[in-house]
This record gives sequence, structure tokens and C-alpha cells, in this order.
Amino acid sequence: MWDPSRARSRRRASGYVRNVGVGVRVSELAHGTLAGLAEIADIGRDARRGGYSRQLWQGPDLELRAWFALRAERLGLAVETDRNGNLWAWWGTPGPDAVVTGSHLDSVPGGGAYDGPLGVVSALEAIGRLQASGFTPSRPCAVLVFAEEEGSRFGIACLGSRLLTGGIDADRARALTDADGITLAEAAATAGLDPRRLGADPEALARIGLFLELHVEQGRGLIDLGRPVAVASSILAHGRWRLTVSGQGNHAGTTLMTGRRDPMVAAARAIVAVQETAAAIPGARATVGRLEVVPGGTNVIASSVHAWLDARCDTEAGTRALVAAITAQVERAVSLNGCSVAVTEESWTGTVAFDAALAGRFAAALGGVPALPTGAGHDAGVLSASVPSAMLFVRNPTGISHSPEEFAEVEDCVAGIDALEALLRSLL
Amino acid sequence: MWDPSRARSRRRASGYVRNVGVGVRVSELAHGTLAGLAEIADIGRDARRGGYSRQLWQGPDLELRAWFALRAERLGLAVETDRNGNLWAWWGTPGPDAVVTGSHLDSVPGGGAYDGPLGVVSALEAIGRLQASGFTPSRPCAVLVFAEEEGSRFGIACLGSRLLTGGIDADRARALTDADGITLAEAAATAGLDPRRLGADPEALARIGLFLELHVEQGRGLIDLGRPVAVASSILAHGRWRLTVSGQGNHAGTTLMTGRRDPMVAAARAIVAVQETAAAIPGARATVGRLEVVPGGTNVIASSVHAWLDARCDTEAGTRALVAAITAQVERAVSLNGCSVAVTEESWTGTVAFDAALAGRFAAALGGVPALPTGAGHDAGVLSASVPSAMLFVRNPTGISHSPEEFAEVEDCVAGIDALEALLRSLL
Repeated sequence: MWDPSRARSRRRASGYVRNVGVGVRVSELAHGTLAGLAEIADIGRDARRGGYSRQLWQGPDLELRAWFALRAERLGLAVETDRNGNLWAWWGTPGPDAVVTGSHLDSVPGGGAYDGPLGVVSALEAIGRLQASGFTPSRPCAVLVFAEEEGSRFGIACLGSRLLTGGIDADRARALTDADGITLAEAAATAGLDPRRLGADPEALARIGLFLELHVEQGRGLIDLGRPVAVASSILAHGRWRLTVSGQGNHAGTTLMTGRRDPMVAAARAIVAVQETAAAIPGARATVGRLEVVPGGTNVIASSVHAWLDARCDTEAGTRALVAAITAQVERAVSLNGCSVAVTEESWTGTVAFDAALAGRFAAALGGVPALPTGAGHDAGVLSASVPSAMLFVRNPTGISHSPEEFAEVEDCVAGIDALEALLRSLL
Repeated sequence: MWDPSRARSRRRASGYVRNVGVGVRVSELAHGTLAGLAEIADIGRDARRGGYSRQLWQGPDLELRAWFALRAERLGLAVETDRNGNLWAWWGTPGPDAVVTGSHLDSVPGGGAYDGPLGVVSALEAIGRLQASGFTPSRPCAVLVFAEEEGSRFGIACLGSRLLTGGIDADRARALTDADGITLAEAAATAGLDPRRLGADPEALARIGLFLELHVEQGRGLIDLGRPVAVASSILAHGRWRLTVSGQGNHAGTTLMTGRRDPMVAAARAIVAVQETAAAIPGARATVGRLEVVPGGTNVIASSVHAWLDARCDTEAGTRALVAAITAQVERAVSLNGCSVAVTEESWTGTVAFDAALAGRFAAALGGVPALPTGAGHDAGVLSASVPSAMLFVRNPTGISHSPEEFAEVEDCVAGIDALEALLRSLL
């Protein structure tokens, strides 16, 4: 469990006032509006990959949840965990027609400090400012922390929001497994949830009148515009597919090159095909960032290789066409080595067009900030199919995300909090 | 710890008298000369990969070591663990000029039932037969079980025999790490060894007058010859190299294809180059069977990829030339994606020509069995630089090894034990 005295001793031990090398300039944060980011700066560091690895319901995520509860309770918010492990912190009586803001605390493996936590810390900070100014909300308000936004443990991004909205079948979700073969149902039970109650939660969802997520930008849009903050216009259609390449396992030393059906070579040809296919289609992005070799011994020709494909394009039809083209090229590529491939869709998210009127109203209220599309998925995108939703992006001067190099200047983070506070003040 | 009553209950639970699906026909073994294989048939099964995963000093390996000690003690042998974790079971007073036979109990991930254990079980069985016949040895005799033959945990094959003979620097060995970052020194300490005493052990080595290893064949030599047993003539020069491909990590959804330096694509091009380079050189075998993506998230463009190359060729110069050619092609391949690669040699074993006079004498004593070269490394090959060493191969009708499909017919295993018993009888 997180407690301030332990956090303080960690701060001293790690030379907390220095730049800690993961994009957080802690000295600038520790006593300012982003003290929350400083407090969690040592939770879930990944010494091997760099950055942070904060996976659902494992040590760092549990510590972050405890930190969130303590932080929210200090603001007088009432913290609850819903049936799917999402955390809600209520200012005033829970819903209906609540204005809900927040993001997530989990990370990709070796991720940056801002992706997720910036939205949570900004939400708490904005509410703290409203309270300090004597503001009294006329509608319910909550901070919402979604579980497993990155899908790093169970493979499905935005799992918490998909479960909440019924965007994923509960039985399918319960059967998802992590790298150790633990099912979501088992992990949920360990975390104190009733796995039978995972899934669509219309009562919880019905409380949301509007959802607003602040997030660090994950591309270069705001750099190019020279602006600190934008509203989101849309999210590219995207999904995840598992490519399972099968061949013949054997001994690496005794098996001649001519007798081989090596799925590692076939998967390599497939990965080149993924890159070449996507590079030829304007707007397409296709990535293999995760791969498992079975059995995975140095002196062993593999028997199979699992490669995960992340694919996105400007339109839903474009994304479907991209994946179809990739599938055809991958099938051709693996056949060169006498191998076969099975392509399985693990998740799919259609194009999200955020409510244009809402985005326009927010952009105007903020003095005319730009509206930006993004290639990155977000819980706000999942929620937008069920409730009015909007997003604020904060400039990332490296343009890099899902990496320790992800960054945001303190002044841009403050501009984001200013914008969030202004919108909450106008909405509440 | 292994005990017969637990093993019996496991046997019942798993339907022990059926073919258990990993190449061991247990019903044929349980009451015969290969009862030892039947006793360990449930230790270290890998449900995910198939076959067995038995890594140094982890649960299954510890259970196998306890089983070996019990089995050896039943024959009246005195069991000791040397400074490097190799197990010795002495028949009579330890060395000098001892006839030593044995193999290993660890496996590759998802390996077969015979690679290693067949040599250990056959050694115990042959000594049991000699004892039962009233034979009295005139020289010391021991069964030797080498630690970490496959290098599956710490990356260096034949680590136990390399440490024993001084074939690897002790400081370098102590610093080797497993997948969890645990050093060999730490793991050795946990296993009850003094890590400061790891390394060359001339006193232990000086006891060996001759080393004889029986092993399942890992290729198709005996199939082609239609024979059950052979002696080994030579082992191909071989080694392991780590290819570390570095690029720029980023978000899979927001990063355009044109801006990428994706090390996964570069590593894929490198793996294709490895295959194509080796396929063009007669006698060459080059394999990437293990790969780690950093950070390894589905929605993350990797920042680096580690791929391990296993390379072997007919001669030492040929293997060096193969690796040089591969390195050049890999450097060219990764540069196409704006990435770089570092190639690090992790292990090297020169060509082993087993003592031809000894092999010829053994082949003749066995009624003219053939002499076969092999592409697979063995502890006997490492020992051959220090003491007279020889090997017996037992036919593998699938020709497949390092896979659950590895197999040996009971009658061929019995022929192997017959041969080992005959040689021990003539030597002792």
C-alpha cells in the first residue's frame, strides 16, 4: 500500500530532486500543481526496459490505486471500485447526469510517465482548485480511473471501459489470459472482485452525463501547431490481430537448412510483409511490437511463433482493407518456408468521431484551441458510443509515446489543468 | 523433493499406463529396463509448449536431482555435488583413472524426454546390471550428471562441463543472468553452492580416466543406416551470438510508417538474412530460435530486439566464415530500417574430433557399429579437450530433437544399454 512516509523515503533514496531520467522533471513537480506525478514517480519503474511497467492488479498498479484513493479522499471524494475494477471518486452524490473526468494509471511495458497518469493527476488537481476557490457544483462530478487501458496484461486495450459499456462479451473477457496463463476471472477474484459480475454495468454507466479525458498527446500534432492544448476530433479505426505461424520444431545443430520449416524465418518474412504493405498505403500504420517464440530456446528451431499485429488506418474500411492486404501478404510470405499462419482478431475499434458540437463548444470556451485527430485509442473513444465524450490533448515535445522518452513540459501540463478546470467550472 | 509415493500418485492421476504424448511409451517402460524414464515422465512437463521444461536449479531440475540421488543410492553409489553443481555417483572409491559415464537432466524449453535423461538412466541401468551379474570393477566408476547442458537458463550450453574443465572464465560465468535477471552466482548460492568456488575444478576432473556419454541421436544418421546404435566421430564447430538490434521506440498508432526506425522490422530482415546466408553455404546451419522484444507491447513500436543466433558448420574456419557472412548481411539488412546491430559472441566450441582410436576400439567391441558425426554439442565434446572421451548414439526414428516429437524405441534404448554395459564391463 502507498503511504506518504514510504514515498518520502523512496524519494530520498533515489535522489528525487534530480531529473529521474524518465521524462519527469521531478524537481519542478514536487511542490507544484503536478505533485501527484512526483508522488508516483518511483512506482513501477522498469529497470530492464526503462520507463514504467504498471500492469493491471500487479504490485505497481495496486500501489497506484491505493495512492489514488488516498489522494481522492484528501479532497473529500468518495472512492468506489465498480464491478469491472474501474475506480470512481465522487464529488457529491453519485450521478445521474454526472460530469466525469479521468484516464488510467496502467502502462505499456516500459512506458512513459504521462500516458494515463497525467489525466488522473490533472482531474484531481482541477477539482482541488475548484474546491479551493469555493466553487459549489450543481451536478454530480467524479474522477474515473479505467482498468487495463493499455491491454498490457490481458491483451485487450481499453478493457475496463469495454467491460463497463458492454463493448466486450463478459465470458470472452473472463477467459482472457495473461503471460502466466492466469485468466482475467482469476485475477479479478484475487483483486477482490466477483468475476461473475464482470461485464456490462448499465447502472454505473447511466450515471455519466458527460465524460472528459485529458491525455498527453502521442504524436506531433501540437508541436506542428505550436500550441500547448487541443481538443480531440477523432480516433482512427484500429485493432489487434494475432498471427500464429506454425512450422516444425527441431534441433538447431543437426537439422540441415534444406529440411527446415522454421516458423521464425516465416514470421520474419511476415513482419517484413506487414511493414511493406502498410508503407504502400497512405495513412496506414501497422506494427508488430510483441512476439513469442515457442519453445524459445537458442539451440532449438521453433515449432511456432505468435506475432501480434496492431493495424490502423484513416477509415474503418481502410483499416479492414489494410488487414486483408497484410493477411494475404503474410500467407504468401510464410508459405515460402513451408509454414502456415492463422490470423485471429483479438480486438477491433471502429473510427471514433467525437461529438463535433461538444468539441467545438469546448474549443471555443478555451479561446479557440485546435481540434486534432489521433491514431491512439482511448477509453473516451470507447465511451463515446454510449455517452457524450470529449478529450483534451497536452503537447508532447518529443512526439514519442509508449516509451520513456514521452514528455510534457510543466507549463503545458498546467495549461492542460487550466483548460480542464475551466471546462469543469462551466459544466458543473 | 522426489519421493516414490508422490510419483506413484502422479502416475495414477495422469493415466500413467497410456502413451503420455511426449514420445515416451510409458506402458512399455514402467516395469522394464527403462523404469527410470517412466519414473521421471511427469517431472517438468510444459503444458504450454508441450514436452518438458527442466531448467537448472528450478523445481523440476531439483526434483530430478533428488530422484537421481535416490536411484543412485539404491545401487549403493555414493552421491556428491561438485563445486559447479554437477552430480557424481561413485561405484567404489572415487578416482583417479575412473571410468565415468552419464549425461544431463536439464532440457531445452519444451524439449523431448530422451535428450539427456536417456544417458543418465542407461548409465544407472548398466551399472545395476553389472552389479546384478556379480561383476567387480577393478577401476573406480561414476555416473556424472552435468548441470545446464542446454544453457536454457543462463545462455551457455554445457556450462557444467565448461566450468569443471575451466572452459569458461569463472567471473564471466558468475555474472551470467537468467531471464529474471538472477545471476548464476545468486542461483548457485540459492542451490546451496559457494559461488566463490564456481570454476575450474582440477581435483574433480583429475579423477576421470575416461568419459563415455550415451545420448539419443538428434538427426537422421542412424535412420539412414538402419542401425540402432553408433559411436560418435566428431561434433561440428558451433557457437551462440547475440544480435542486439536498436531503433526508436514509439506509439504504434500515432507514428507514421515513414518516420519509423522499427527494430522489429530490422530484426525480421536480419533473420531472413541469416537463413538465406546459411542456405547458400554447404554444411552450414544457422538458426534464430530465441528472440526478445523490448519493451514488447502490442501497441508499442519496439526500441530494441535481442535475437540469438546459433551457427554451425563443417569446420571451425567454415563456422567463423559463416558468422562473418551473416554479420555482414545482418548489418546491411538492419540499415534498411535506419537501425543498428551489435553482434556479441556468447559461446564458442571448436570442432570436436573424438579420439579416433578409442572410437574405433569401441565400435569394434560392439561388433562393428558405425561412427557418426553430429551437429549437436555435448558435455563429452567439452571434456574431450581434457580427458579421453567417447559417445554412443541411440537411434531416433523421428530424426527430430529439442521437441516433444523426439523419440527412441524401447528396443533401441535396450541396445544402447547393452552397448554401454559391454563397454563398461571391458573397461572396468
